[in-house]
Amino acid sequence: MALAGKASSGTQSVKILRASADSQVVQDDRVAVEAPLEFLLHHPSLGPEPLSFGTTMRTPGDDESLAAGLLYGESIVNRPGDIEALESSTRRPNVVHVRLHSAVQIAPNTPARLFSAGSSCGVCGTTGLDAVIARAAATQVIDGDRVAMSLLLRLPDVMRAQQSKFGDTGGVHACALFDFSGNLLEVCEDVGRHNAFDKLVGMSLMAGNLPLTDRIVVLSGRASFELVQKAIRAGVSVLAAIGAPSSLAVSLATTSGMTLAGFLRESHCNVYAHSQRLTGG
Amino acid sequence: MALAGKASSGTQSVKILRASADSQVVQDDRVAVEAPLEFLLHHPSLGPEPLSFGTTMRTPGDDESLAAGLLYGESIVNRPGDIEALESSTRRPNVVHVRLHSAVQIAPNTPARLFSAGSSCGVCGTTGLDAVIARAAATQVIDGDRVAMSLLLRLPDVMRAQQSKFGDTGGVHACALFDFSGNLLEVCEDVGRHNAFDKLVGMSLMAGNLPLTDRIVVLSGRASFELVQKAIRAGVSVLAAIGAPSSLAVSLATTSGMTLAGFLRESHCNVYAHSQRLTGG
Repeated sequence: MALAGKASSGTQSVKILRASADSQVVQDDRVAVEAPLEFLLHHPSLGPEPLSFGTTMRTPGDDESLAAGLLYGESIVNRPGDIEALESSTRRPNVVHVRLHSAVQIAPNTPARLFSAGSSCGVCGTTGLDAVIARAAATQVIDGDRVAMSLLLRLPDVMRAQQSKFGDTGGVHACALFDFSGNLLEVCEDVGRHNAFDKLVGMSLMAGNLPLTDRIVVLSGRASFELVQKAIRAGVSVLAAIGAPSSLAVSLATTSGMTLAGFLRESHCNVYAHSQRLTGG
Repeated sequence: MALAGKASSGTQSVKILRASADSQVVQDDRVAVEAPLEFLLHHPSLGPEPLSFGTTMRTPGDDESLAAGLLYGESIVNRPGDIEALESSTRRPNVVHVRLHSAVQIAPNTPARLFSAGSSCGVCGTTGLDAVIARAAATQVIDGDRVAMSLLLRLPDVMRAQQSKFGDTGGVHACALFDFSGNLLEVCEDVGRHNAFDKLVGMSLMAGNLPLTDRIVVLSGRASFELVQKAIRAGVSVLAAIGAPSSLAVSLATTSGMTLAGFLRESHCNVYAHSQRLTGG
């Protein structure tokens, strides 16, 4: 039952007991790799010592894109030129170095921001999260083209065919980027759905492809506030989830002009916000 | 498509467009509520001002249990007596006050701990997360009774019948606590699977029921490192997930003596660690 073998392509071999009520068989199986990744920021103002931007649990692969997307989502960087270099260390596989352009502003409390949307005003009760929600809600998604509903309904199948890690393990989230003609542009996978999205955004950022106007992002799971926030920040026109959205996800998409669909299936979906971007036929 | 109506029981009514390729119908639907909750700690050493322990996005309901379970998982409290009072404010519904016993030690960097497993040693590369992993792996689950595999396979159906919010929205995670006779003791639901687990642990803590020896916890989703860590901390004997485990989840369960099953179905499951606790028949 212990882990065995070497991690490869984000999955790892494992011995399992395949068990029913009346039979038990030892089998080989594969699980998704989950391992920590630390983000170290380098910037002229910091001197020779990097600043830790925190650690996240992720599936190894596309670590540089994950770093870029995370920093973009957190508004530390705003354009490709804000990042001078992204380097994964072969000596320390769970660290990624980000060399920031000198023009980037590093706030004194930068590292605390990542996982802590928590600092609050003790007097009025306004939390940092309230500010995050307000900022996200103030961002408007560009109103571009329209896309056919029939095209949208076909996308989950296309994404699933490209989910190599999910096929191996059944335990990895994915997000996929499509254009309005239904062409698959990118698929990212990770045990964490936020990481999968950050990887996609990081690739798009560094390729100079943000904002993602007239693009569809399909999520393998549910649409939470945080994922909708990241999608709005990246300028995604249509966010479509296989799972359900939360109340705050619906509210934020409505305010920001982003089309939000959920329960996306081959036959139908539910549209929670800005259905005007989806046409019949 | 906007949110309408009042939140009740953690779900909220919403107008959706139910759409297929050739039909679009406006319908009423329900989504799971997602809203911030801030944890404010009170302790004699802090004087009159509470200390913010951060904010999490959660589905309202059982906020006090969520707070207790979170603080237990983070090792801020270790026994029911460490918490003198848990109070939700009706004036500020997204805040929970926790009055800690004077004997509780509050470390100076306490608030940073919650969402930031990130602080690291710049020299050796050891992250705070490495320390968390090492501490979790050093904890041993008590080796109590055995439980029949046939009983385990029946539990997801029992849990699903009790998932009221999931039935309404299809978008809420659950975790359920069972004894080794298959009796359902508790079900907790939340948009966040970590929150659902924290609520369950918080209830068990305050009822004096920790450690959860000879108990089974069923998770509606996947088993990540963090959930396995929380389960080991609560002394859970058998953790069984409807979804897949990650590599680190398997590794941690193996080291700690906890039985870990995944892909739990009516007909079968995969056992990843300590199958000796599960008997045939």
